[in-house]
Amino acid sequence: MDQKKEQKIDFVAKKTPIRIMEVGPRDGLQNEKTQISLTDKIQFIDHLIESGIQEIEITSLVRKEKIPQLSDAQELLAHYQNHSHWKHFWVLIPNKVGLEKAVDLKVRNVAFFTSASELFNQRNINSSVQESMQRIQEMISYNNELPTHQKMHMRVYLSMVFGCPYEGDVPYEKTFKLIEQLLQWGITDFEIGDTIGVAGPKQVEDFLKQLKQHFHIDQFAMHFHDTRGMGIANVLISLEVGIKSFSSSAGGIGGCPYALGSAGNVATEEVIYLFERFGLTNLPDPKKVAQAAIKLNEKIHRPMSSKLSQYYQKNSK
Amino acid sequence: MDQKKEQKIDFVAKKTPIRIMEVGPRDGLQNEKTQISLTDKIQFIDHLIESGIQEIEITSLVRKEKIPQLSDAQELLAHYQNHSHWKHFWVLIPNKVGLEKAVDLKVRNVAFFTSASELFNQRNINSSVQESMQRIQEMISYNNELPTHQKMHMRVYLSMVFGCPYEGDVPYEKTFKLIEQLLQWGITDFEIGDTIGVAGPKQVEDFLKQLKQHFHIDQFAMHFHDTRGMGIANVLISLEVGIKSFSSSAGGIGGCPYALGSAGNVATEEVIYLFERFGLTNLPDPKKVAQAAIKLNEKIHRPMSSKLSQYYQKNSK
Repeated sequence: MDQKKEQKIDFVAKKTPIRIMEVGPRDGLQNEKTQISLTDKIQFIDHLIESGIQEIEITSLVRKEKIPQLSDAQELLAHYQNHSHWKHFWVLIPNKVGLEKAVDLKVRNVAFFTSASELFNQRNINSSVQESMQRIQEMISYNNELPTHQKMHMRVYLSMVFGCPYEGDVPYEKTFKLIEQLLQWGITDFEIGDTIGVAGPKQVEDFLKQLKQHFHIDQFAMHFHDTRGMGIANVLISLEVGIKSFSSSAGGIGGCPYALGSAGNVATEEVIYLFERFGLTNLPDPKKVAQAAIKLNEKIHRPMSSKLSQYYQKNSK
Repeated sequence: MDQKKEQKIDFVAKKTPIRIMEVGPRDGLQNEKTQISLTDKIQFIDHLIESGIQEIEITSLVRKEKIPQLSDAQELLAHYQNHSHWKHFWVLIPNKVGLEKAVDLKVRNVAFFTSASELFNQRNINSSVQESMQRIQEMISYNNELPTHQKMHMRVYLSMVFGCPYEGDVPYEKTFKLIEQLLQWGITDFEIGDTIGVAGPKQVEDFLKQLKQHFHIDQFAMHFHDTRGMGIANVLISLEVGIKSFSSSAGGIGGCPYALGSAGNVATEEVIYLFERFGLTNLPDPKKVAQAAIKLNEKIHRPMSSKLSQYYQKNSK
């Protein structure tokens, strides 16, 4: 097939670098039951940096009691504050209190989150879609009023885009309306999440085609879960449609605690392997990403989710 | 993207039914260490039939000592000989002795195998590529000379097409030459195997584009291993290029005993789920396929390889 697609993928390779955001330390770990020590997290993040990954979401500034796994956020951020990689770290921020802490800690990149699903917002963050959008607007204003050197890059995560465990189908128009609003508020960096891993490539393609009619596709990253084994195929079709930005977690760790059986982000090393086999260059080392995950996984005490990590694990013995 | 691709996939959906061959009972089980009893195999195959799968490779007529897991081949075939599903069963045949047994047992569909990799043939079946082709030619001749009612459908498996653990890259031309020869001998049904699961979608697309220049694509089935997590993405790109026939194993059981760490066929239920999410109809029930695999897996005593089966398993409790 398809002169057209090939040209597109060549374009991706040559003109626009692939952007991979590693979300294992936050999105991944948040959903793992076994408590991981600060030392082990630092080791994990150090290994990820060594693999060549640039952007890493390392924690979230939530109330300590809310997510025990991330209760060491301030210590973790303090540890890395003077690290050469600091400017590439992202922190998930739920509200203005968190954002104020982020400013104190000199964080450079912050992510906010919402969803077009009314019920998911209610159960996940105990607010309506509108309330959650207001909260984001407040945070954007707060950030915009900071002195230039303190202003942070912002990204918004939109989750449950392809379906919600409580609401079922979530009409794409609802997501598009949120994006429209967020663009007006100055957000230019979005992550679209299939949070329960329900989408197949056809849905992803349909969504992205519609998205392209309204918005500039370079502003969007895709975030897939591999719940039903479709993760890498969904990454592939996104790449074909023109997406160049993805977020994923080393080893495929994580999931969504609010959605039954939705465990497993798509694995960063498999995403990289896919791109490598496309001939794309300047990528992180998938084997080193896998090794970071394998090392961490010894602490998590459950089978590796990533097939590529399983492969590397077997073949290193 | 891509008017062109969409039309193609619509074409697949409307004009040409998808063909799925389940190879779990042979290719899958052959590579599982735990010996599965005849009763458990029959239960597995019965569940697969109930799922709506038509074609099933159920065993191989090899010497008993060669593959202990399949040493009950004759009993298994005897059990199903008068079953309404009999005409949809396939049996892998290594040589003329096996083929004679197949005739005695009234088998309807036989598969032969070879590979363009010289070293893999040597280590796997202890013969050169040429010797293995001669053996296939003998079997074809033998089958052709049978009375019409005894003549069996034939398929040839070509393995290690995208790479070999001993030889490394296997030039596509070598595979094309074998196909050319086999076509001259009257074979019209081929299975192309990424036996060590090394291919990415780009390689699969490149191969299939070249294949299409020489041969009629409807004569080819694709068989992927999910060793590095690329299995479903490879199925997707094959579908895009025009392949309508796939072979896979329920639960992703199996692997290749001669290739380190190459465990895991792509899972039939994930292949079906992919097609279902494309809007294709008249497919087997992926949940029932998964249930067949889950039931069998209780006997195999290792974690399920298929993510979709893992999902169904978690959510049925």
